[in-house]
Amino acid sequence: MTDLTNQVIAAWQPRVLAIAMAAADGDGAHDSAHLHRVWANARALMAAAEAAADPLIVLAACYLHDLVNVPKTDPRRAQASRLSALAACAALAEAGFPAALLDGVAHAIEAHSFSAAVRAETPEARIVQDADRLDALGAVGLARLFYTAGRMGSGLAHGADPLALHRPLDERGYALDHIAAKLAALPAMMQTAAGRALAQERLAGLLAFREQFALEWGAAWGAAA
Amino acid sequence: MTDLTNQVIAAWQPRVLAIAMAAADGDGAHDSAHLHRVWANARALMAAAEAAADPLIVLAACYLHDLVNVPKTDPRRAQASRLSALAACAALAEAGFPAALLDGVAHAIEAHSFSAAVRAETPEARIVQDADRLDALGAVGLARLFYTAGRMGSGLAHGADPLALHRPLDERGYALDHIAAKLAALPAMMQTAAGRALAQERLAGLLAFREQFALEWGAAWGAAA
Repeated sequence: MTDLTNQVIAAWQPRVLAIAMAAADGDGAHDSAHLHRVWANARALMAAAEAAADPLIVLAACYLHDLVNVPKTDPRRAQASRLSALAACAALAEAGFPAALLDGVAHAIEAHSFSAAVRAETPEARIVQDADRLDALGAVGLARLFYTAGRMGSGLAHGADPLALHRPLDERGYALDHIAAKLAALPAMMQTAAGRALAQERLAGLLAFREQFALEWGAAWGAAA
Repeated sequence: MTDLTNQVIAAWQPRVLAIAMAAADGDGAHDSAHLHRVWANARALMAAAEAAADPLIVLAACYLHDLVNVPKTDPRRAQASRLSALAACAALAEAGFPAALLDGVAHAIEAHSFSAAVRAETPEARIVQDADRLDALGAVGLARLFYTAGRMGSGLAHGADPLALHRPLDERGYALDHIAAKLAALPAMMQTAAGRALAQERLAGLLAFREQFALEWGAAWGAAA
């Protein structure tokens, strides 16, 4: 990025963070540290990206992608990213954000979500989607997965069959199932080559964890029978 | 264990499990799977133990050690294991459990807890304490740690200093701090040689996770500054 771009980014970062924090709800898996990580991932992807992306659009979309939170169990869940896009653009316009970039921010926020099923059509949207999904993988992703399960009150794993060898996966019921049901599919869904490589590396760690978890868990179940 | 002992254990296991489940509160980190794992750990420790332990005392104490749950933030937390011991003995007596073993069960339950600071005086109490603490380590222990943080609404880690290099550890505020503040001390506190060896092995995995977590977390923080 040029010096001028860096100055613009440095000026806007605290302002988009403040907008995000005004809507924070105490969820440790979606706090300011998550937003900083998504932005860090996005910067790394921009540095490696095939196509040029506008960093100011990416910055705003990274920090405001979760602005409106709808619980995973809520039927309006699929609208959360649309609602976040609308709320983000309203707040950005009020803050004096360049009007010509608002459509790009809105699209990147709308397209970031699994549930919305909106195709990412711009380089910025592809980078933000990959950056957010990368934070679901790796050691931090693992911590966020079980943290969210605790918040939602689901179980850690199926008692007798943690690896779902003889039953369908149930990611609502069991935190461990989330790895095979959702996270394992992420590398193939990544939009950038750099994102895909990093996702594959991080997924390998999660799959190794899943095996070790099942070993410890299954030994107990065998002894209990 | 002899065939007769195995029969007695097999007869009592579903009954002590039923007593435990009647008091279950939907905490996935302290569900029946946790009780099965503690009992599995205890069986492994008994098989390797230096001193003979009564397996029926160990069985009852493993399944009933968390019978009365007191939240970690409650001032009566230190009494939870005493309350669990009393409730367990009442329920066991009513179920026709051998009266001569009740004192042994009560002591093992009371002594299992960190907060109670009751010294384990019997082989059964030492085994139950080690068996429960082993379940705080390893892959399952890691999942339970972040799951419990989600339930309690604490943060994942300190934003700028996840490894607590320049601040005191704060295990109430940050899930990651729990590894260095509590779990790292467990191997030295184990009461049996087999428990200590297994605890050291599992702790190594947690410390490696902590390093990887801080790498991913810290890179984001650097980028955010």
